[in-house]
Amino acid sequence: MFEAFRAIEDLKPVLGDRLVTSGAVREHHSHDTSRLPPSMPDAVAFPESEGDVQAIVRTCAAYGVPVVPFGVGSSMEGHTIPIQGGISVSTRHMNRILEVKPEDFLAVVEPGVTRKQLNVALRDTGLMFSVDPGPDASLGGMASTRGSGTTAVRYGTMRENVIGLRVVTPDGTAIRTGSRARKSSTGYDLTHLFVGAEGTLGIITELTVRLHPIPEEVSSAICAFPNIRNAVEAVIATIQYGIPVARVEFLDEVAIGGVNNYSRLDLKVAPTLFFEFHGTKAWVGEQAQVAEEICLENGGTGFRWSTDAAERARLWQARHDILWATKAIRPGCDLYTGDICVPISRLAESIVAAREDIDASPLTGQIIGHVGDGNYHTAYLIDPNNPDELAEAERLADRLVERALAVGGTASGEHGIGIGKLKFMRREHGEAVDVMKRIKAALDPAGIMNPGKMGQAG
Amino acid sequence: MFEAFRAIEDLKPVLGDRLVTSGAVREHHSHDTSRLPPSMPDAVAFPESEGDVQAIVRTCAAYGVPVVPFGVGSSMEGHTIPIQGGISVSTRHMNRILEVKPEDFLAVVEPGVTRKQLNVALRDTGLMFSVDPGPDASLGGMASTRGSGTTAVRYGTMRENVIGLRVVTPDGTAIRTGSRARKSSTGYDLTHLFVGAEGTLGIITELTVRLHPIPEEVSSAICAFPNIRNAVEAVIATIQYGIPVARVEFLDEVAIGGVNNYSRLDLKVAPTLFFEFHGTKAWVGEQAQVAEEICLENGGTGFRWSTDAAERARLWQARHDILWATKAIRPGCDLYTGDICVPISRLAESIVAAREDIDASPLTGQIIGHVGDGNYHTAYLIDPNNPDELAEAERLADRLVERALAVGGTASGEHGIGIGKLKFMRREHGEAVDVMKRIKAALDPAGIMNPGKMGQAG
Repeated sequence: MFEAFRAIEDLKPVLGDRLVTSGAVREHHSHDTSRLPPSMPDAVAFPESEGDVQAIVRTCAAYGVPVVPFGVGSSMEGHTIPIQGGISVSTRHMNRILEVKPEDFLAVVEPGVTRKQLNVALRDTGLMFSVDPGPDASLGGMASTRGSGTTAVRYGTMRENVIGLRVVTPDGTAIRTGSRARKSSTGYDLTHLFVGAEGTLGIITELTVRLHPIPEEVSSAICAFPNIRNAVEAVIATIQYGIPVARVEFLDEVAIGGVNNYSRLDLKVAPTLFFEFHGTKAWVGEQAQVAEEICLENGGTGFRWSTDAAERARLWQARHDILWATKAIRPGCDLYTGDICVPISRLAESIVAAREDIDASPLTGQIIGHVGDGNYHTAYLIDPNNPDELAEAERLADRLVERALAVGGTASGEHGIGIGKLKFMRREHGEAVDVMKRIKAALDPAGIMNPGKMGQAG
Repeated sequence: MFEAFRAIEDLKPVLGDRLVTSGAVREHHSHDTSRLPPSMPDAVAFPESEGDVQAIVRTCAAYGVPVVPFGVGSSMEGHTIPIQGGISVSTRHMNRILEVKPEDFLAVVEPGVTRKQLNVALRDTGLMFSVDPGPDASLGGMASTRGSGTTAVRYGTMRENVIGLRVVTPDGTAIRTGSRARKSSTGYDLTHLFVGAEGTLGIITELTVRLHPIPEEVSSAICAFPNIRNAVEAVIATIQYGIPVARVEFLDEVAIGGVNNYSRLDLKVAPTLFFEFHGTKAWVGEQAQVAEEICLENGGTGFRWSTDAAERARLWQARHDILWATKAIRPGCDLYTGDICVPISRLAESIVAAREDIDASPLTGQIIGHVGDGNYHTAYLIDPNNPDELAEAERLADRLVERALAVGGTASGEHGIGIGKLKFMRREHGEAVDVMKRIKAALDPAGIMNPGKMGQAG
């Protein structure tokens, strides 16, 4: 489009080789990990400073050209696909760790810093950045999708772990949100407005994130259950007892069977919980013992636990190998992934229904869950070249969301809305969607920030 | 004003005796606990349902009449003072506990429910609502000021403990924010936008709040320190060790001296920490022992701890009696209260400077703090009829805020902006204030919701 051409011409002298229009680079920024149709940006910018980002946004604002932030491209619902073209803004080169303040339990980073990179830098501090979504995502991307993962049950999601931001708003102004204080009662909570906004309200140029002490000791445990309900009730009882479970993951029978084959394990093929406890030596032992009692009361069998690193790795091997084990169930398949979160009181019935749906379908599928949060994922194994299988997976994933919404849950626990789940926004949020649209229109009247996504469509 | 008269006439047939114009009732809603000048509302409404609230807001919107939400009136910075008249909306009769879901660790309440009322209702569930700002405030008010208190270091503030809301927005629409899921990646985070908005974006008509297990055991401890810095460093080290302190309160020498006199205690007159630990029997013992070692390493003396209820009450008596003890230092005085929060690495120097300011002033004053959060309060003892003393207290409180902002802190840890701290909004938030104003203008274009406060002035 002509406006994009003019914006690119204007930006070339400012950005130099930090602005790229080659086909290969544009192609790389045309898709994410979803099966949503790719769409090419007109150019990809690689800013190295907040000033670069401001120049890009101001120029695009002047010409009404879309601006689409891009982290590492690990999003799963099309968030970073430039469906209206424009300029993809990669944060890859804004990857400096600006400050680590151990006494304040915080770090200040640029948005392209990845979670692994940050944890390597923290090694000598005794602290860790806790949020672990699986891939080595950028912190800017994780904030924008309100990401989480296995440790959220104990340490929270990006919602709890981002305490302040710098953001370039759609008119090119750079603002700071939050403060370095652990709490504050001043002003509208803009930090939480930008966390989860999926790049539709501005571009994050700096994050202040919360750090947690690395536990002195870790204990891991595993336990099989006669059925899904018993497993979930054991989780609820453990939390009610006051045990601060650090991780509690669920694998259903199909997942366990897959891992037994792939990793040559001999786990009982049954709904299984994987626990992790953090604390002092005495405390992690006590946590595991309390959890064992609760699991046995709820019909659990074969409870094993350990604080030994090698043994812990062995206990959790099934959980760690799950991605590859699942793909190996049907060589060459793609995984179509569902992601919902329900109140934990409705979790057992929700998983049972999801399991029944899969069993009644021609597709194979399995279920794994961050069950302490009520969040779980279905994975449907499909032939990527078979449109019927894709349609069937979509049908199953939609039914999953519809049931979640019917019990007070949410259409996405951690993957986000992107393009794929826009259709559920009004069903989940009702008239609150109009309030979101008013906020989007107020902050981005020209609609240049990641257009066609949250705040506009849906 | 004539518009208010017309709004009242229109609302009379709708609300009946739930709309009051008597002088005594209007006077009661003309002030809060601050020394800010009172201002009378034209009427006070006592809605009993969300429908009532919608009727009030729609009528006021039609005439451009201010709407000022009111909980129990315990705010400390003028939040509920109707400085432009209009209708005070008391949530006093919206005080039903609608649902308690122990398995989901949540309760659904109307905004007039107070924290003590909720905890009484939770008695048989083994769960508690953790946020404790001191007075028996309404949950709607606590949410609107993003309140917290002594337990925030462990269980979070209202920011972490409100998981969803119903809100009547300034055009009279009722929306729902959040869901019952523990986490979600769908949509702008409207819950956190309304939490802390001080009634300027809508009226909260329902809250879904998070509950926590009542700990099996509680241990309390007390320790004196040679100076403020050592006390703060002991707190930092305790948290770095991974001890999940449930409460850690600081009293300075003046506060300890006052309590010794008032409560006939013989505490060492020194900076003193009061700890509380929650957990299993073994775990609270271990927490206290680790804290003791750390306190001794940091120069602490006289460390005592106990799990016995009577002994715990005795250890914490000084902290519990502090309000009355302080007032007794100068009979007939008023307490002018400061409230800031700083990064904990800057807490010691901040308290020392606040102490030096008081010592150099003709006023007496003391300092108490929720030090695990970096939040503390100064209390200046003033003669309420002496304008010079009020001016001096204001000067001290302003200096306190200015120093907090200079080190990356915030103008208010938990009391909020109200009227009293509007002057610091731009200094703290810079150009982010313009984003807040754009949001306010988008959601409340006529400016009827608690006008002249956050989002408009400052």
